[in-house]
Amino acid sequence: MYLKNMWYVAGFADEIGDHPIARTLLEQPLVFFRDRGGQIAALADRCPHRFAPLSKGAIVGPGKVIQCGYHGLQFDARGRCVHNPHGPIPQAARVPRYEVCERRGLLWLWGGDPEQADTTLIPDYGDFAEAPPDATLRGYLPTQCHYQLVVDNILDLTHADYLHAGGLGNGSLTRARAAVTDLSPRSLHVSWKVAGEPTIAAFDVHLREQGRATEQWTEVTWTAAGNMHLRTGATLLGEERSQGVEAMTLHLATPETATSTHYWYWSIRNFAISPDANSQIHKFIEFAFVQQDKPMLEAQQRAMQGREFWSLRPILMASDAGAVSVRRKLDQLVQAELEMHRHQSNEKIRQPQQPEPGEIR
Amino acid sequence: MYLKNMWYVAGFADEIGDHPIARTLLEQPLVFFRDRGGQIAALADRCPHRFAPLSKGAIVGPGKVIQCGYHGLQFDARGRCVHNPHGPIPQAARVPRYEVCERRGLLWLWGGDPEQADTTLIPDYGDFAEAPPDATLRGYLPTQCHYQLVVDNILDLTHADYLHAGGLGNGSLTRARAAVTDLSPRSLHVSWKVAGEPTIAAFDVHLREQGRATEQWTEVTWTAAGNMHLRTGATLLGEERSQGVEAMTLHLATPETATSTHYWYWSIRNFAISPDANSQIHKFIEFAFVQQDKPMLEAQQRAMQGREFWSLRPILMASDAGAVSVRRKLDQLVQAELEMHRHQSNEKIRQPQQPEPGEIR
Amino acid sequence: MYLKNMWYVAGFADEIGDHPIARTLLEQPLVFFRDRGGQIAALADRCPHRFAPLSKGAIVGPGKVIQCGYHGLQFDARGRCVHNPHGPIPQAARVPRYEVCERRGLLWLWGGDPEQADTTLIPDYGDFAEAPPDATLRGYLPTQCHYQLVVDNILDLTHADYLHAGGLGNGSLTRARAAVTDLSPRSLHVSWKVAGEPTIAAFDVHLREQGRATEQWTEVTWTAAGNMHLRTGATLLGEERSQGVEAMTLHLATPETATSTHYWYWSIRNFAISPDANSQIHKFIEFAFVQQDKPMLEAQQRAMQGREFWSLRPILMASDAGAVSVRRKLDQLVQAELEMHRHQSNEKIRQPQQPEPGEIR
Repeated sequence: MYLKNMWYVAGFADEIGDHPIARTLLEQPLVFFRDRGGQIAALADRCPHRFAPLSKGAIVGPGKVIQCGYHGLQFDARGRCVHNPHGPIPQAARVPRYEVCERRGLLWLWGGDPEQADTTLIPDYGDFAEAPPDATLRGYLPTQCHYQLVVDNILDLTHADYLHAGGLGNGSLTRARAAVTDLSPRSLHVSWKVAGEPTIAAFDVHLREQGRATEQWTEVTWTAAGNMHLRTGATLLGEERSQGVEAMTLHLATPETATSTHYWYWSIRNFAISPDANSQIHKFIEFAFVQQDKPMLEAQQRAMQGREFWSLRPILMASDAGAVSVRRKLDQLVQAELEMHRHQSNEKIRQPQQPEPGEIR
Repeated sequence: MYLKNMWYVAGFADEIGDHPIARTLLEQPLVFFRDRGGQIAALADRCPHRFAPLSKGAIVGPGKVIQCGYHGLQFDARGRCVHNPHGPIPQAARVPRYEVCERRGLLWLWGGDPEQADTTLIPDYGDFAEAPPDATLRGYLPTQCHYQLVVDNILDLTHADYLHAGGLGNGSLTRARAAVTDLSPRSLHVSWKVAGEPTIAAFDVHLREQGRATEQWTEVTWTAAGNMHLRTGATLLGEERSQGVEAMTLHLATPETATSTHYWYWSIRNFAISPDANSQIHKFIEFAFVQQDKPMLEAQQRAMQGREFWSLRPILMASDAGAVSVRRKLDQLVQAELEMHRHQSNEKIRQPQQPEPGEIR
Repeated sequence: MYLKNMWYVAGFADEIGDHPIARTLLEQPLVFFRDRGGQIAALADRCPHRFAPLSKGAIVGPGKVIQCGYHGLQFDARGRCVHNPHGPIPQAARVPRYEVCERRGLLWLWGGDPEQADTTLIPDYGDFAEAPPDATLRGYLPTQCHYQLVVDNILDLTHADYLHAGGLGNGSLTRARAAVTDLSPRSLHVSWKVAGEPTIAAFDVHLREQGRATEQWTEVTWTAAGNMHLRTGATLLGEERSQGVEAMTLHLATPETATSTHYWYWSIRNFAISPDANSQIHKFIEFAFVQQDKPMLEAQQRAMQGREFWSLRPILMASDAGAVSVRRKLDQLVQAELEMHRHQSNEKIRQPQQPEPGEIR
């Protein structure tokens, strides 16, 4: 059960151009393309005629509509059939559409009724696109697990002390204990502060002097449903933060299916700004993910054997405070949505209406 | 739910020889072999002793019976155990048999009770085997979709204008509109006629002059359940058909499972009769199928997500007339069979009988 | 439904050392490791915190406990959490443990309640480890079938006359007819004796003279649930057994899942004792298994299409006596266990107790 009336990252906006892109989000196969005005469209990826995926078609004509590759029906960005080469346009020839929003380089998709989409709910991440390219890393990390395991993973970064021991972990986060701050029903902040000991190897090597006592900060802001903004850095003890090293990384997890997650990251930093350093750090991050996080997340998923998280009675520790709060918030948001939906269904019984296309089941 | 009391193509007859051939038809694993008299036998591919597939055994002895490869039981072409090396032949040692018929190079299997097999229902396709080898193409195109999607595909050939645009489609079929003729409860004819414009590239190149106005004909005869005879050709406008080019192709689709189809084709023609031309046309056909039809059919199957065709409420257009009529005919035939079966079951309650082996569930 | 209160082979004892080994037995993912005292421990392979497989962790510290690779919890050989780096040890932090026993080179796992483990039930196979290394073969043959098909396979060795015709079979076992002796509710003996004809090729080549009349013996002792001790040999007719050739082979089948089996073998012999001969015989055995038994067992499994053995109504022949007796014994043992369990459940209702961790469902 996913939170529907919420924005989910659907990718980087510059991925979408003249060719239709197929991508399944929240178990819905979708097709993305840019229309005549350059606006990104998202439609259900299934022609209503014979169910061919529209993504196997092409963007055609001056109107930049999408043409089904099987029998040639054409649909505009709102899912309306605008051309039937075989005769008149059937009234039922409509494809459900989804609301999308392009914002500072990211493509967001609203999971619910397009009419209710509220762009004020998109988290403000500032402008990652303005950072120097040589201090910028972007990537895609598809993972065969439920997206909430990815969220858990970032909300309890003590895992770095074990899973990433050496490069990204030196035991300091485990010793630090996390401070959790509730920001809103849809967001939360977790922070670890360490002072007086050397920072992790990945930062230490970029400080003015190595192996020295430092102040180190690690701050995660989660925004529903699967978005994490991570600020992490270190400076020599007694110096300003701005004299140290700092990275800001978006970890963006969107359900593809119940057992697979689209996981995008976007990282910028104030140090090691050169093509060589950038390429080296890229390899380091991909190694940590592909060789360490991904196998663990996928093993976790398999070990749960399809059972619901709480039904397995996880033991709870102090370090789980952030992740557990987030799970409870999401449970509450989904619950509220179900109740709203029940209420609206009752309304509809009294006052029947057309079903709205484009609403995710 | 498949139509049972009907003939299904099981392959080319010359595929069956001295070695047992395993092939699943209508979700039944079967084994085919030739017995002493050269007759093709079809048995359930499961030894009644320990369930080893008989196809893993061998054809043995002067009687050319099939010997289980696990413990050596032998069965004749009618499924009777004729040798048990371990002692007396148990009465229950019988394998369900299926009725098969070798006809003009094709192997047909009756899907229902062998006693009710009616060879007059096998479609008469004339003698494709008499065509010159250099004008003959045969092939097997296994496809991961329900067999009715393959039938739909051939019954609405306007798809060539989009899926095969360029070589096999130039928009003319879409403009022509199909004429549908009901032939019988088990057969139907769809025809497209185009006059006054150049024909498709695949034909145009073989006409006396290129790019000229032509008369072009495309005629499909469907016979239940999955057999399509396609006659297609073109001649320069005002000339006799016999002066032009023409191909006749059998498209033979048999269910393997609910999501996979045995698809055989057999094509003969009156032009480009040489080893080189034949090999080139073979590549062209395989390309069209493997790169264009097959991915589309399999994508359609996946997009339907296991749901029944009508439950997805396909929009209906004029171009669907042939395919939709065929679907309705098949639905009616299956329905009639279910009712007959219910009636017979009631009869059996009053007058109990032995269950007949070899009947597909 | 597996027999629980019984020992199952979990592997060779020398496989378990300083690294955790993941292995699923009876559908339970387990982790094996050696603790401080060198004792082998078997725990459920799932951390109770976030369900990471413990086998992805490491054996750490002087206590040789297992540390979760995700967030660092440590568990001892009895499944008790002995260290939580994030704070106090939660009371619920326990991992189900399984009783294991290392015995003459084999590792045995008790499938039921550890408190009820009874080591007198472990079959006594003498000391295979004392045989000369050049006369010893050991191997692992994972097979995608239910373990009872492997048991059936060894209990009816007439299959060698067909499946292994040539090397291991010459029709003699089929002609011999098996003698079945009931040893206990948990064990059974099947024996084939052949006298007066040449033995199988695999033995004949190692006798003093080839192609001569021999006495040949083949004896299987089955012990519940999946353990077979096979003694097989041949001697020239009229000579002592000790003058002939003889091999003793353990065939040890343990359920991994309902459709996959851990299959270990351990074979010693009194002939062809040299590195070259050993390596050649190893290849021969692996060929017979990988090219002949395994494909047949897996084809059998597929042909049964997930249905229960008896529901398919196998025909029964004299040669099935051993295998069928074993199936009936196993059915009775499982049934008795279910009844005992029902009885104990009723007891528990009257006198509630803590559920025992480590009991396989």
